[in-house]
Amino acid sequence: MTEIQELLRSVAEGKISPEQAELELKMKPFEDMGYAKPDLHRKIRQGIPEVIYGEGKTADQITGISDKLLADGQKSVIITRLSGEKAESVSKGISKFKYFETARIGVAGEIPGTDTKGSIVVATGGTSDIPVAEEAAVTAEMLGNRVNRLYDVGVAGIHRLLSHSEEIMSANVIIAIAGMEGALASVIGGMADCPVIAVPTSVGYGASFGGLSALLSMLNSCASGVSVVNIDNGFGAGYLASMINHIERKG
Amino acid sequence: MTEIQELLRSVAEGKISPEQAELELKMKPFEDMGYAKPDLHRKIRQGIPEVIYGEGKTADQITGISDKLLADGQKSVIITRLSGEKAESVSKGISKFKYFETARIGVAGEIPGTDTKGSIVVATGGTSDIPVAEEAAVTAEMLGNRVNRLYDVGVAGIHRLLSHSEEIMSANVIIAIAGMEGALASVIGGMADCPVIAVPTSVGYGASFGGLSALLSMLNSCASGVSVVNIDNGFGAGYLASMINHIERKG
Amino acid sequence: MTEIQELLRSVAEGKISPEQAELELKMKPFEDMGYAKPDLHRKIRQGIPEVIYGEGKTADQITGISDKLLADGQKSVIITRLSGEKAESVSKGISKFKYFETARIGVAGEIPGTDTKGSIVVATGGTSDIPVAEEAAVTAEMLGNRVNRLYDVGVAGIHRLLSHSEEIMSANVIIAIAGMEGALASVIGGMADCPVIAVPTSVGYGASFGGLSALLSMLNSCASGVSVVNIDNGFGAGYLASMINHIERKG
Amino acid sequence: MTEIQELLRSVAEGKISPEQAELELKMKPFEDMGYAKPDLHRKIRQGIPEVIYGEGKTADQITGISDKLLADGQKSVIITRLSGEKAESVSKGISKFKYFETARIGVAGEIPGTDTKGSIVVATGGTSDIPVAEEAAVTAEMLGNRVNRLYDVGVAGIHRLLSHSEEIMSANVIIAIAGMEGALASVIGGMADCPVIAVPTSVGYGASFGGLSALLSMLNSCASGVSVVNIDNGFGAGYLASMINHIERKG
Amino acid sequence: MTEIQELLRSVAEGKISPEQAELELKMKPFEDMGYAKPDLHRKIRQGIPEVIYGEGKTADQITGISDKLLADGQKSVIITRLSGEKAESVSKGISKFKYFETARIGVAGEIPGTDTKGSIVVATGGTSDIPVAEEAAVTAEMLGNRVNRLYDVGVAGIHRLLSHSEEIMSANVIIAIAGMEGALASVIGGMADCPVIAVPTSVGYGASFGGLSALLSMLNSCASGVSVVNIDNGFGAGYLASMINHIERKG
Amino acid sequence: MTEIQELLRSVAEGKISPEQAELELKMKPFEDMGYAKPDLHRKIRQGIPEVIYGEGKTADQITGISDKLLADGQKSVIITRLSGEKAESVSKGISKFKYFETARIGVAGEIPGTDTKGSIVVATGGTSDIPVAEEAAVTAEMLGNRVNRLYDVGVAGIHRLLSHSEEIMSANVIIAIAGMEGALASVIGGMADCPVIAVPTSVGYGASFGGLSALLSMLNSCASGVSVVNIDNGFGAGYLASMINHIERKG
Amino acid sequence: MTEIQELLRSVAEGKISPEQAELELKMKPFEDMGYAKPDLHRKIRQGIPEVIYGEGKTADQITGISDKLLADGQKSVIITRLSGEKAESVSKGISKFKYFETARIGVAGEIPGTDTKGSIVVATGGTSDIPVAEEAAVTAEMLGNRVNRLYDVGVAGIHRLLSHSEEIMSANVIIAIAGMEGALASVIGGMADCPVIAVPTSVGYGASFGGLSALLSMLNSCASGVSVVNIDNGFGAGYLASMINHIERKG
Amino acid sequence: MTEIQELLRSVAEGKISPEQAELELKMKPFEDMGYAKPDLHRKIRQGIPEVIYGEGKTADQITGISDKLLADGQKSVIITRLSGEKAESVSKGISKFKYFETARIGVAGEIPGTDTKGSIVVATGGTSDIPVAEEAAVTAEMLGNRVNRLYDVGVAGIHRLLSHSEEIMSANVIIAIAGMEGALASVIGGMADCPVIAVPTSVGYGASFGGLSALLSMLNSCASGVSVVNIDNGFGAGYLASMINHIERKG
Repeated sequence: MTEIQELLRSVAEGKISPEQAELELKMKPFEDMGYAKPDLHRKIRQGIPEVIYGEGKTADQITGISDKLLADGQKSVIITRLSGEKAESVSKGISKFKYFETARIGVAGEIPGTDTKGSIVVATGGTSDIPVAEEAAVTAEMLGNRVNRLYDVGVAGIHRLLSHSEEIMSANVIIAIAGMEGALASVIGGMADCPVIAVPTSVGYGASFGGLSALLSMLNSCASGVSVVNIDNGFGAGYLASMINHIERKG
Repeated sequence: MTEIQELLRSVAEGKISPEQAELELKMKPFEDMGYAKPDLHRKIRQGIPEVIYGEGKTADQITGISDKLLADGQKSVIITRLSGEKAESVSKGISKFKYFETARIGVAGEIPGTDTKGSIVVATGGTSDIPVAEEAAVTAEMLGNRVNRLYDVGVAGIHRLLSHSEEIMSANVIIAIAGMEGALASVIGGMADCPVIAVPTSVGYGASFGGLSALLSMLNSCASGVSVVNIDNGFGAGYLASMINHIERKG
Repeated sequence: MTEIQELLRSVAEGKISPEQAELELKMKPFEDMGYAKPDLHRKIRQGIPEVIYGEGKTADQITGISDKLLADGQKSVIITRLSGEKAESVSKGISKFKYFETARIGVAGEIPGTDTKGSIVVATGGTSDIPVAEEAAVTAEMLGNRVNRLYDVGVAGIHRLLSHSEEIMSANVIIAIAGMEGALASVIGGMADCPVIAVPTSVGYGASFGGLSALLSMLNSCASGVSVVNIDNGFGAGYLASMINHIERKG
Repeated sequence: MTEIQELLRSVAEGKISPEQAELELKMKPFEDMGYAKPDLHRKIRQGIPEVIYGEGKTADQITGISDKLLADGQKSVIITRLSGEKAESVSKGISKFKYFETARIGVAGEIPGTDTKGSIVVATGGTSDIPVAEEAAVTAEMLGNRVNRLYDVGVAGIHRLLSHSEEIMSANVIIAIAGMEGALASVIGGMADCPVIAVPTSVGYGASFGGLSALLSMLNSCASGVSVVNIDNGFGAGYLASMINHIERKG
Repeated sequence: MTEIQELLRSVAEGKISPEQAELELKMKPFEDMGYAKPDLHRKIRQGIPEVIYGEGKTADQITGISDKLLADGQKSVIITRLSGEKAESVSKGISKFKYFETARIGVAGEIPGTDTKGSIVVATGGTSDIPVAEEAAVTAEMLGNRVNRLYDVGVAGIHRLLSHSEEIMSANVIIAIAGMEGALASVIGGMADCPVIAVPTSVGYGASFGGLSALLSMLNSCASGVSVVNIDNGFGAGYLASMINHIERKG
Repeated sequence: MTEIQELLRSVAEGKISPEQAELELKMKPFEDMGYAKPDLHRKIRQGIPEVIYGEGKTADQITGISDKLLADGQKSVIITRLSGEKAESVSKGISKFKYFETARIGVAGEIPGTDTKGSIVVATGGTSDIPVAEEAAVTAEMLGNRVNRLYDVGVAGIHRLLSHSEEIMSANVIIAIAGMEGALASVIGGMADCPVIAVPTSVGYGASFGGLSALLSMLNSCASGVSVVNIDNGFGAGYLASMINHIERKG
Repeated sequence: MTEIQELLRSVAEGKISPEQAELELKMKPFEDMGYAKPDLHRKIRQGIPEVIYGEGKTADQITGISDKLLADGQKSVIITRLSGEKAESVSKGISKFKYFETARIGVAGEIPGTDTKGSIVVATGGTSDIPVAEEAAVTAEMLGNRVNRLYDVGVAGIHRLLSHSEEIMSANVIIAIAGMEGALASVIGGMADCPVIAVPTSVGYGASFGGLSALLSMLNSCASGVSVVNIDNGFGAGYLASMINHIERKG
Repeated sequence: MTEIQELLRSVAEGKISPEQAELELKMKPFEDMGYAKPDLHRKIRQGIPEVIYGEGKTADQITGISDKLLADGQKSVIITRLSGEKAESVSKGISKFKYFETARIGVAGEIPGTDTKGSIVVATGGTSDIPVAEEAAVTAEMLGNRVNRLYDVGVAGIHRLLSHSEEIMSANVIIAIAGMEGALASVIGGMADCPVIAVPTSVGYGASFGGLSALLSMLNSCASGVSVVNIDNGFGAGYLASMINHIERKG
């Protein structure tokens, strides 16, 4: 909290007036006072990409924000929920741009490399869950993680899942993605001894009620170590998985 | 439909008047006309026990109905949802009476023997599901079936279930009973190639919402051959399983 | 479990090394170890058609998978949830192809014949339920069953249903399909003495809440022998009905 | 509207001052102005009993109100949702008092006789629905109607209902009461050509969700002429049925 | 029940064989046996129009059915839920045809006249409820009733409703139609002393949840004499209102 | 209540007959009797603009009503839920017309000025909530209030909100608008000591269930002084805020 | 923000060291920095009573906290959700204590007097809503407001409400409390031109679903100026009403 | 996978017969084959306590299982959802036993020490959430974690939370526990840069619907890094937090 100390010292030394000090304290309270996360600066220092939620923003707005962030020193910018159409427009306005179609994610600037040893498994119950899974997987990869995709390993054919036991056992974090009955999270949760992030999807019809069935099922998982994010929230799962996978940096 | 033919022939032969015939047609329309199931008679002939729903009936009422049914030639009477307290009262009024405590089922008269070769597997996700499972199992046994109990084989420890693969593969019908996330039905449905009757239970707390979570999960099962009965409806599952297990008698 | 025995004997006889045996055990665990259903092989041996869920797959993907399955010896391939448009494309790529428009089912290869004596009744409450009913009926027919259609026999005109008492009484399995108040399953369940598979449909408006009303109604059926599948799940009902109708092959 | 005319005439004749007239107009606006139902007076004139909702009132309060109403010329007072315990207390304080135990209704004063020719049928799906049915039936009887009780005629045994076709066909109004799947209203609605008032009950368990299943089912009835009141609202159904049954008095 | 008597007499007299009699009994059970409503015949005799639910039927189907009914002696045919586009097609195929645009009702054949003295009030809370109201009003008119429309008299401006007190007080039946908070039914129920049929509409947004709010509100009405039909079910309300308004014909 | 007094005095003085007086009392009861709000007159006197709900009305209808209101002396007319397309049509028919695009509000006539000192803060959790916020803000401005917009100050970055503490502390009323988890209302409620009107929005996906999540969250706010309006009801919030902000005019 | 100025000035004047200043800034950030509400002090200065939520606290805890607050200069302490039993215990430990039984509110210390001219109307639909109403009314009174109680003025007898038009028209704020169909808020909202705080209650049965029906109804109110608090939240309504009623003190 | 290698080598060397090997492979498939988690052994080796779910088990059963586990070498056994009454019985049967009353957790055997450096913050919105928080905290402590409790820091008084910024910023994992509006998770999620496990509680009334409000709110959190467990599931949160806090052991 050196900035406050410095400021106060300047007052003590008569370099600035108390009135000026008060104004500064009011102007930038969160950067100095320690009661809020100075995310912007830390992220830029550490090279973690900034994320833009693409839905509801025009291609021009996205291009503008990306440009500014890259100009400010950000190495790469992730844009989620980006439609193919908008991606095409954005790609024209930014020199370095890559679009992940299934994940509906665009990346402006450099494609980040892997910076951790541990791997994240992204598993889905069916093939219809893949778009959500790719959102999670690409997010995790762009945040520096190695990702192991296990798609279409739903519990109605349990042997498909069992044949991947080793990958499941050796993961650092697992993202279990499923619609309909959402049982995948429980079965994986029972097989693994690492945190499992469950993502219910809106895949299904009738009594799936837009993902409610999978959501409730995952919340009631009888396996320990399972937690749940919002329906279809692949980005949130990928982000949290990366957070857990990078946790050794701390403490 | 011989009874109608006989009646009409009697009219033709002048044995009874048309007025009398009309009255008879009105008096017992369902036994004769074929548009309703003559359950009582067929059941007695075939020795299938009659069933009394015990909830909301007094011990005296239950004793009375059972007595009458036994006197009418019924060999055994099943009483479901029978509390221990009522069972004690009933047992005093009926000479042959057996109470299955966990299943909350009483049987008046003879305990029926097994009359089919095929077996019914009754599986539960946890130990708390056992009362519902016993209601299903004892119902099925009292209707003449061999029952194979696989309790506490929930999907969060998938190896428990896999170690019973052979029993599951060789069953004629399976009753899969689970609360919470209700995933058991899907996993068993994928392992078995016989009909699976799923019974959601009200076991759980919080977002299990009294069995809603397991119910929705089971309705959305991605395994073929799975159908669902009401929450905690062990009797219904046992009855339907027996129906399916006895199906070779027909056609 | 002769394959394992054979493998182990080969090791004992020095024909293969322990390392090689271990690898093989890991490579094909489900075919050999008995803890998973070898469905593919059994089905091909028995001539049961393979099923493709058409929704979310392109015409090209469907043509490709069908071709491969037929080339592998599969006699016929059922494709469900297949739109008319896709069906037209698929029909051009496969020599033998038939499309059931109302059922939205396509069949590649030979149309399977009937292989059981018992019949399945498919009944609907109204005319709007017919697409779901046809999905169930055609599924059952393609799996070798005789199907008896009783459409528009809803309970608000109970005489329509009663005039079909004989068909209902003589069925091996009944599929009762209804939207709105879903009462058909209960009334049929009371008339029949065979398993009744209830299919709620999303037909209706207002307080039908997309099929929820019929779903709850059917789950609460006071008739014994009734179980329920997901809203609009005609395929699931047809598949389960066929399973029950073929049950005498077992045990 | 003679009272207003009389008042205005008195003003015109100088019998009362305008100020006094204004006050009177403000004091009893609804009795005079015609924009609200003068229920109290009309009911007393016509001998229709006043109704007290007993729940949440003490025995003393009920006795007090009843006394006052009887003293004011009311011939009989109906008290609904009256527990047996309170009924005993009330019976001690009022000379003429009769308690209908199953209906949980008490009647202070004279038991009203029948004053219409048409009859009301009260039908229930099961025996557990009888308390709600009795609330409806006794309400209707106390309001002057002949009531025909058809209990335990649920649709899972459709012959029970059909054997009462004549009573159903000849009713003026029918109250159809059922819990669980609530199908009774639709079947009766299809058989009858008079208004059917459907009463869902909270009888059931699991997916009956406290009567929600029956409620939705009844609202979605495909039979014309069916309308619905609140879950367990026997009184409301009896009151409305009486209103319809007395309708010839009007216009 | 003369037809049965006649048939039996013919058998007694040797005019027809018992076999022939049996066949006839089976062929037309509901017309003769009295356990089902012979609606078709009675309606044609009484001149009550037949009703076709237009949704989900093609213009050709509607024209065809209408033609046939008119040819069979039916004087007029009501077609509900008929879009303007279909109506135009139908109008070309039927000589006498009238379309009520707001009500989305078409009438083939003669426009029925009024055959009762009592009137039905159709009231709405807002102007957006008018299409549902017109469906109710035109239905009632086509079934022979005089209809009094009170539109946009919602409770948030209670004076609008009060200014129509006389119409409300003098109605034989009232249909109260409202979306959003659905309070209209309760207020009218308190003002009127005739049956009130409440129709919740899907008008509203947000927490109206497609009419659920109005539906629950109406079911909980504290006014006596109020019952409820499905959301947006104008036809059902009009039909039931007509039934009640014609009730003096009976018993 | 001078009008009644006057009327009665006229009767007393023989200027009008009692019959005439009675008629007048019936003809305009709410203007005279004091039991209903004479909003039209008061509003015109006070210059408060009249409001038209634009949804479901044609451009022609809106133009017509606006014209009439302006001709009747109304200075300005607010039209809510007005699409851009309709606004264009309306603008052609009215000489003075301004359209607020994001708010989807049109104003015919003069743009009202500010008539209070206190200010209303309109805060949103995210940028997607801005359309609802603008509906609230423009409504409040058109009703004479100064509005302070604090957009995108969601609780997941609490420092954004804290940097506006002074504005929040000095507001007379605050409108807190948020979708998703809806926590903004609670945090602002805890910071402010003025009434907070919470507006849940339908912004979000998955388990936001169309605004239900934010709605429940806001209703359960543990901060005192918070109340809630319907999902997306910006107009209602703006209107109520203005009412509170003008409250010193009264009593 | 004089405290910060003073502190900084002391640093400038060398009275305290910068280190000491930094510590102080960290120790009491919210009292000084202006980004949080210093409620405690302001309340004590202004004599507004502190509030304790009694549920879940023991009588000893309540006595302890009350004692401390009174000792700290607080003139009166309001304790809500206080059962009669606990109140008796508390009354023994505090010299000045008054218990409002129906409201379930206790007041320790002085009973506050009225400090505003404007009045708050508290209206209920039925008598069962009175406990919630009293919680609101007593809360408002203890916060210095005059309260006008209008109980049992539900909309099913609209004349009861209309007879109180003057009170409703002259209120500064109105609290409308109702269970079941919750229509009271809309009708009052239409009659009044002041803010209406709607409180749904859990009074009712069946489809009232614990207050959900009234809650949705109130949220959908078509009257402007209505907002809603949580089910049964009388305290919240009383507190907010007082806030609005005291609003002239500000700005 | 040395055990399989060893076994196969024994067969190759003739030490055991192929039949014997096959039997062993079938007897302990999950310990050897790698497709299931050998939790028991690993846990005992690593000293991680075994967990017993106390609800639904008798004191005798709990004592029995604990005894056996301790005898098998387990150092400590955690028993969750253990009532005070049962705890007393259990404490008599086990020599070393400690009961955490608020957490409702018992520990048989040794109290485990801390084995990680990182700390887990357990924060609650209110005091009523403390039992759930203690379940989480004691679970985490018994699994070897240091726990930092921040209770009653709900968002309605945001300064309470801000004063703990440093603890929040320096945590390795945070468990955010709240009922009612559940906003705590979002605010903490925005302040912290570590994983946040959100636990909704059933604390609240009315529209909290047993924790549904907090659950939905938390699932919709707009802060990244937040995931959710079941309502009131303190144990699950503590277990998962410990898993994340120990994650550096892996990979």
